[in-house]
Amino acid sequence: MRKLNIALIGYGFMGRAHSNAWRQVRSFFDVPYEPVLKVICGRNEGELIKAANKFGWQEHSTSWEDLVGREDIDVVDICAPGDMHLPIALAAAASKKIIFCEKPLANTVAEAKQMLEAARANGCVHMLCHNYRRAPAVALARELLGAGRIGEIYHYRGTYLQDWLVDPDFPRVWRLEKARAGSGALGDLLSHSIDLARYLVGEITEVSGLLKTFILERPLPQSRTMAPVEVDDAALSLVKFESGAVGTIEATRFATGRKNYNRFEINGSRGSIVFNLERMNELELYVDEGPESGFRTIQVTGKGYPYMEGWWPRGHIIGYEHTFTHTVLDLLRAVAEGRLPTPNFEDGVRNQLVLDAVERAAESRSWQHVPQTI
Amino acid sequence: MRKLNIALIGYGFMGRAHSNAWRQVRSFFDVPYEPVLKVICGRNEGELIKAANKFGWQEHSTSWEDLVGREDIDVVDICAPGDMHLPIALAAAASKKIIFCEKPLANTVAEAKQMLEAARANGCVHMLCHNYRRAPAVALARELLGAGRIGEIYHYRGTYLQDWLVDPDFPRVWRLEKARAGSGALGDLLSHSIDLARYLVGEITEVSGLLKTFILERPLPQSRTMAPVEVDDAALSLVKFESGAVGTIEATRFATGRKNYNRFEINGSRGSIVFNLERMNELELYVDEGPESGFRTIQVTGKGYPYMEGWWPRGHIIGYEHTFTHTVLDLLRAVAEGRLPTPNFEDGVRNQLVLDAVERAAESRSWQHVPQTI
Amino acid sequence: MRKLNIALIGYGFMGRAHSNAWRQVRSFFDVPYEPVLKVICGRNEGELIKAANKFGWQEHSTSWEDLVGREDIDVVDICAPGDMHLPIALAAAASKKIIFCEKPLANTVAEAKQMLEAARANGCVHMLCHNYRRAPAVALARELLGAGRIGEIYHYRGTYLQDWLVDPDFPRVWRLEKARAGSGALGDLLSHSIDLARYLVGEITEVSGLLKTFILERPLPQSRTMAPVEVDDAALSLVKFESGAVGTIEATRFATGRKNYNRFEINGSRGSIVFNLERMNELELYVDEGPESGFRTIQVTGKGYPYMEGWWPRGHIIGYEHTFTHTVLDLLRAVAEGRLPTPNFEDGVRNQLVLDAVERAAESRSWQHVPQTI
Amino acid sequence: MRKLNIALIGYGFMGRAHSNAWRQVRSFFDVPYEPVLKVICGRNEGELIKAANKFGWQEHSTSWEDLVGREDIDVVDICAPGDMHLPIALAAAASKKIIFCEKPLANTVAEAKQMLEAARANGCVHMLCHNYRRAPAVALARELLGAGRIGEIYHYRGTYLQDWLVDPDFPRVWRLEKARAGSGALGDLLSHSIDLARYLVGEITEVSGLLKTFILERPLPQSRTMAPVEVDDAALSLVKFESGAVGTIEATRFATGRKNYNRFEINGSRGSIVFNLERMNELELYVDEGPESGFRTIQVTGKGYPYMEGWWPRGHIIGYEHTFTHTVLDLLRAVAEGRLPTPNFEDGVRNQLVLDAVERAAESRSWQHVPQTI
Repeated sequence: MRKLNIALIGYGFMGRAHSNAWRQVRSFFDVPYEPVLKVICGRNEGELIKAANKFGWQEHSTSWEDLVGREDIDVVDICAPGDMHLPIALAAAASKKIIFCEKPLANTVAEAKQMLEAARANGCVHMLCHNYRRAPAVALARELLGAGRIGEIYHYRGTYLQDWLVDPDFPRVWRLEKARAGSGALGDLLSHSIDLARYLVGEITEVSGLLKTFILERPLPQSRTMAPVEVDDAALSLVKFESGAVGTIEATRFATGRKNYNRFEINGSRGSIVFNLERMNELELYVDEGPESGFRTIQVTGKGYPYMEGWWPRGHIIGYEHTFTHTVLDLLRAVAEGRLPTPNFEDGVRNQLVLDAVERAAESRSWQHVPQTI
Repeated sequence: MRKLNIALIGYGFMGRAHSNAWRQVRSFFDVPYEPVLKVICGRNEGELIKAANKFGWQEHSTSWEDLVGREDIDVVDICAPGDMHLPIALAAAASKKIIFCEKPLANTVAEAKQMLEAARANGCVHMLCHNYRRAPAVALARELLGAGRIGEIYHYRGTYLQDWLVDPDFPRVWRLEKARAGSGALGDLLSHSIDLARYLVGEITEVSGLLKTFILERPLPQSRTMAPVEVDDAALSLVKFESGAVGTIEATRFATGRKNYNRFEINGSRGSIVFNLERMNELELYVDEGPESGFRTIQVTGKGYPYMEGWWPRGHIIGYEHTFTHTVLDLLRAVAEGRLPTPNFEDGVRNQLVLDAVERAAESRSWQHVPQTI
Repeated sequence: MRKLNIALIGYGFMGRAHSNAWRQVRSFFDVPYEPVLKVICGRNEGELIKAANKFGWQEHSTSWEDLVGREDIDVVDICAPGDMHLPIALAAAASKKIIFCEKPLANTVAEAKQMLEAARANGCVHMLCHNYRRAPAVALARELLGAGRIGEIYHYRGTYLQDWLVDPDFPRVWRLEKARAGSGALGDLLSHSIDLARYLVGEITEVSGLLKTFILERPLPQSRTMAPVEVDDAALSLVKFESGAVGTIEATRFATGRKNYNRFEINGSRGSIVFNLERMNELELYVDEGPESGFRTIQVTGKGYPYMEGWWPRGHIIGYEHTFTHTVLDLLRAVAEGRLPTPNFEDGVRNQLVLDAVERAAESRSWQHVPQTI
Repeated sequence: MRKLNIALIGYGFMGRAHSNAWRQVRSFFDVPYEPVLKVICGRNEGELIKAANKFGWQEHSTSWEDLVGREDIDVVDICAPGDMHLPIALAAAASKKIIFCEKPLANTVAEAKQMLEAARANGCVHMLCHNYRRAPAVALARELLGAGRIGEIYHYRGTYLQDWLVDPDFPRVWRLEKARAGSGALGDLLSHSIDLARYLVGEITEVSGLLKTFILERPLPQSRTMAPVEVDDAALSLVKFESGAVGTIEATRFATGRKNYNRFEINGSRGSIVFNLERMNELELYVDEGPESGFRTIQVTGKGYPYMEGWWPRGHIIGYEHTFTHTVLDLLRAVAEGRLPTPNFEDGVRNQLVLDAVERAAESRSWQHVPQTI
């Protein structure tokens, strides 16, 4: 089997998840290429060496600039902070690499567009890692929607709730700085809900918005000095879809008790679908069947469900990181078949355009259109 | 025990629920007055006689004008359609009756204000029937919030979902006419969510809104002639509370599979609360308790919970209509204690002001302030 | 409409529930007779007068012996303690009354048989009040089973869990005395699970059993004197059905946190059904439908479900006491149609035979047959 | 880091799960040894080569006899069918290997005892793979029980429900032959419930039993010839624990809709605990807290829970196979610390003794003692 050499930039939370995906995919799926964990890249060499050893990478490097130009590298996998996505992607594009990038694609619409253009101009395969599309239950939802099982869509109701900022003593980390993080719950969480909305219901054309910062300053890390929180703690939006459907989309880091409550409910003319990431292996489905109708809980495990042929028998659940394994599987398959995978940088731009419209709507206190031509 | 003679205007769905409440309250609670089901009023005499007999009323009458002036009537209970609330309430106020009125108080802000002023000017006891405040689990939520169990409130998330209009062949009934119904999901359902929001979180000061009619015309009842649907099928809103909390509030008649899904979630600095009318006897509570933390399902049944001392032992649930029984109980108690019960016509006006702001926000495509001085 | 005069013996928990049923049934259903709450009977006259007034009875009496012979009484409703069922029923039978009796029918098989024989010999209509058969979700389960929706039955799994005896300081009340109560969880709770098993799956032919008393002595009420607990705290049984199905049936008063957890699960060749009294308005159903299969939660509310045409629209739940209202409705209908209602005293005898077999099995440490000929 | 060379015998479902555990453990945990996937063993060389490549084994072998004696092998991991456990374990013991064996330990008590004696006599480290003990929620349950959070235990209610045999056309595979499989649901599923019962509540001293085969003959694989089903489809048991607690334990392959419903509920004097493998990342806990009491759903994810420090942040779930990873982690740690891990072959013998007693109880139709001295 032909091999593909991977270079991974970033060794934090996402770096660990991507490493696992590249390492595991060939043991559970029939892959067209064998991914080789060639080199992992980061700034702190001590930590990097530990990570390389633990995650199974052959080499390590502290210079992404050197790395992306290496001839033996096929895939550049970008897990660096948001403000680094653009320069790395431009360099990788110039070197004609396959580019796989964590979400959100960039901190601004302008950056996102530059990345898309560079990838297109150089004929690169590009993919954006919105891993929740590859939760089998979400993929099943898409199949059911595609087959018209719940009819014409009327409502999308997306909430992504976490609670890790509720403690006022939680420090003012870089994720709460505008310059580095771009935004708060908006880019981190609402972007997921928007990606799922676009994947499942279609393009969003208009938005109303509300951004809220509940705690205005926090102590700097390991310090008593207070510093301002520059990003939103919560982002709320009403949306109109191209199709005529309407939606509420909400993300917050202040929903005490909600750890990773990425939930959506879709109501259509013939039925409804509900998903909640905290019960990732389940999909709720309602279809009208007279007196026997009810929301049913489908256990999306075992043969017959998207991606699940690779894992275990019915009733044996999979975990969070498997969604990344499915994502790299689809990237490998797209490369083999000469297709552009989805979501890709265009989806990243479109997602960013919605986020941007929500910000504008919140500031202007009025509905804003989302540009559809890019 | 002193008796209070009740006159009920309306014998439909709400008339039946109110009849039951008046009939049952003394068998389950220690009441300061014995309510007497004196006279029921409606237009169709044949149906009215049946209702009077079945629901246990002593007399019937087809003229509310005659009725509200009768000396032997103590309480006028208004269950007539929305456009009748104003004239009946004005007459009842002129006769110094205790006035008990189904929600929404009126079809417009102006009407609602007139009703409040008339009741005040005549020194009447007035109460608005927002029965869900009297679901024991909701009353418990209010107690927990009042005791600070979940700390400072950050988020309110209210959804009232039904699905009875999904069928395009469902006829264009009077509830879908602007002149008679005032509005659609907005006044019928969103008003409940707004009442609960005001009860539990406080006054709403600003709103963004979206009103949507999915099916624009329907056949007239028992006819093939199509007529326009003049009211909203769904009403969505982002809201800001006086306290600094933010919220999403949504109501629809197009959520297939949701029959009476009046749900709210409140996130505070120390915990969260969730209620869903479809499981009316339960309240979900989260409070931070380290590794043992989790959303718990409190069975709000048996001794120790609001109103439940009147009913059955732990684990024996109550039904929908009991919320009305609790409401009339509180009315009787307020009368006995010379207090104005809540919610009353002032709450009705404030609720209407929020609904009005949502409509204005939807039309103007911009955030609108909710007047706080009335 | 013809009237039926009711005499109720007992004014405690069950007396209150039966009073409500007789009072309410005509307001929600088309009844063939109007039940008249004629006279209520008990020993403590002071309490009795209060109950008569509160529950709406025309008269009260402290002598059941006088009462059951009165010519103006049509129905004798027995809510007295278990050891009083036999004498009252014999007297009522001798007077040719319609006899309605709370479960369990009697404290022993012999007593139960005497009651059945007396009722038969005098040509009385007799009914046993196993109210949970009239929970609409249970009645729906029966319909689904009858229609073969889940195929041939393999498993019945019944648990009736409460926790009111967990506190060791809870006093040694009469319910814990063998002579008065007959048994503990066995007759109080397991009898319900067995009635549901017989109703839904059929006759039980063999049982294995385990009876357990966890706390062997308790203080007498309002005393520090300890007295032995003479009945079982928990009753467990394996059962074989005539049909070939097998089951586990368990009841306990020591399941901390379970308040009224009367749950059953039935597995058949084509599907499964689950019911839990704590969510009485729901029924879970699984039927095989390929990848869309899942346990669905049917909201058994609104038109189209057993008994629910009498109450409220979809999504508006009913409460515990409504099951009694449905039971007296069925009694009235059976009387009008000249049918013997079910469950009746024969069911009471059969239920008692199973309980007796469980006791014998526990004592003998071996499987016991349940006599089928009575 | 010192390396440990692993030899795995078996490449089916369990072989795949064990391979993954050995491969993954070092990427997520700080391990005292680096496990090396040295050699995988099986009969069909073609399939074996594919498995070796896919799962990441360095070598393959078709002779377990050769393998277990190799000097470079440290750990013999037995995933072969039940009737092969004994000969492999005896040989591995003779070669002083660390022995890791899939459950159930053997097909009979006598075989299990032989294996234990051989491991002991040769001073081997031995471990039995009952992976569900290593579900973090189960380990948390054990911690809570150990800390007395739910007080003295009264009830254990274990059910392991699957449905893969419901189809009468499912073939008569080897798992339905007595000689090869030993038993049906009894050894396959009930053994899991019994292991959890022993782990969480303690030793079982007496049992009542019922074994049932619903479908008596089935077609041989790829054939129309019918052959008898020789093992139980369902195994039910009442049990008494040494501690005084009582239990129901049930396993079946005929619970339509239940895919991997390995659930237990434990009721104690101060609270209750519920676990269900289908929602493996959750634990339900009830502790008495007055009116705020309720069953809470703990999300056993993120820091602060057993094994979860190795994986992802709160709300990011793990999958079925991770329980094996935790099991081999504990084996490596025990080896490093010179301890005998649990469960080990002694647990295997005790488990087998309970299964044997259930069989004897079912046959004899009477309660049977479980020998406690081994």
